[in-house]
Amino acid sequence: MTLPIITVNPKLDLVLEREIDVPVELVWRAWTTPEHLRHWFVPKPWTITACDLDLRPGGAINFTMRSPEGQEFPNSGCYLEVKPLERLVTTDTLLAGYRPAPNPFFTAVIDLARNGSGTRYRAIAIHGEEEARKKHEEMGFHDGWGTVLTQMVEYIKAGNVPA
Amino acid sequence: MTLPIITVNPKLDLVLEREIDVPVELVWRAWTTPEHLRHWFVPKPWTITACDLDLRPGGAINFTMRSPEGQEFPNSGCYLEVKPLERLVTTDTLLAGYRPAPNPFFTAVIDLARNGSGTRYRAIAIHGEEEARKKHEEMGFHDGWGTVLTQMVEYIKAGNVPA
Repeated sequence: MTLPIITVNPKLDLVLEREIDVPVELVWRAWTTPEHLRHWFVPKPWTITACDLDLRPGGAINFTMRSPEGQEFPNSGCYLEVKPLERLVTTDTLLAGYRPAPNPFFTAVIDLARNGSGTRYRAIAIHGEEEARKKHEEMGFHDGWGTVLTQMVEYIKAGNVPA
Repeated sequence: MTLPIITVNPKLDLVLEREIDVPVELVWRAWTTPEHLRHWFVPKPWTITACDLDLRPGGAINFTMRSPEGQEFPNSGCYLEVKPLERLVTTDTLLAGYRPAPNPFFTAVIDLARNGSGTRYRAIAIHGEEEARKKHEEMGFHDGWGTVLTQMVEYIKAGNVPA
């Protein structure tokens, strides 16, 4: 029997689960297209000024966040799994081409499932140590990831992601 | 055009390339079967006392090396890519289930290609910093990886890996 590869450890991991009323195809597109991702992926009034996605295992997921004061924060990582309409796994522990990253922090798993005309959405942040989980929690994981998910749903509902 | 995902950087990476006269199918099996791996994967007289392979992206590659003096050294990591007869990618920057590892060091890529009745074999150790590459070189990368490759070829030639 093959066990699921992702196992949530409440001491180490953070989970956001929500049922959203937009179709799984559009959620997938919003997550995997640079022109869409930059519109919802950081809590406003922050913005994304650069976004480079190479959607395959080992491919880059790089983006630059800009604060309202104009300070820029580059983020680099890579995709680990890309299963259309089902699962995206990314990590900042590895850069493009699986090169070890200078400041590893966590792996992100996005699980999607069709739910009537909507989507069951689950995001998991996987950490290596309890301290990293706590730090992420204090940085505002639940608020932040919840806010950008709401932004994504509104962005899709406004008709920005063509079917 | 899709570029290759693995790009070697001579400042950061270490490469071992060799043409070996054993078939690619047996090399793949020697690399992916615990009962075989433990016979050749560390330079003798070191041994492997435990070996747990979960051959899929995110699956564990865990093994314990034992020195001639009896000291044990556990190693943990996970597979990133599993392409039968072609490519294996593993890393110690992530544990099973893509969990960030406590002591990240490098990613290993094993590229295989059929070469007549033999195999073109390329192993790449990918590091994040020049210092890590240097450390790995001083630890004896070329000797060590070369020695175990020779051990693998001898193990296969002795008929230990059934066709």
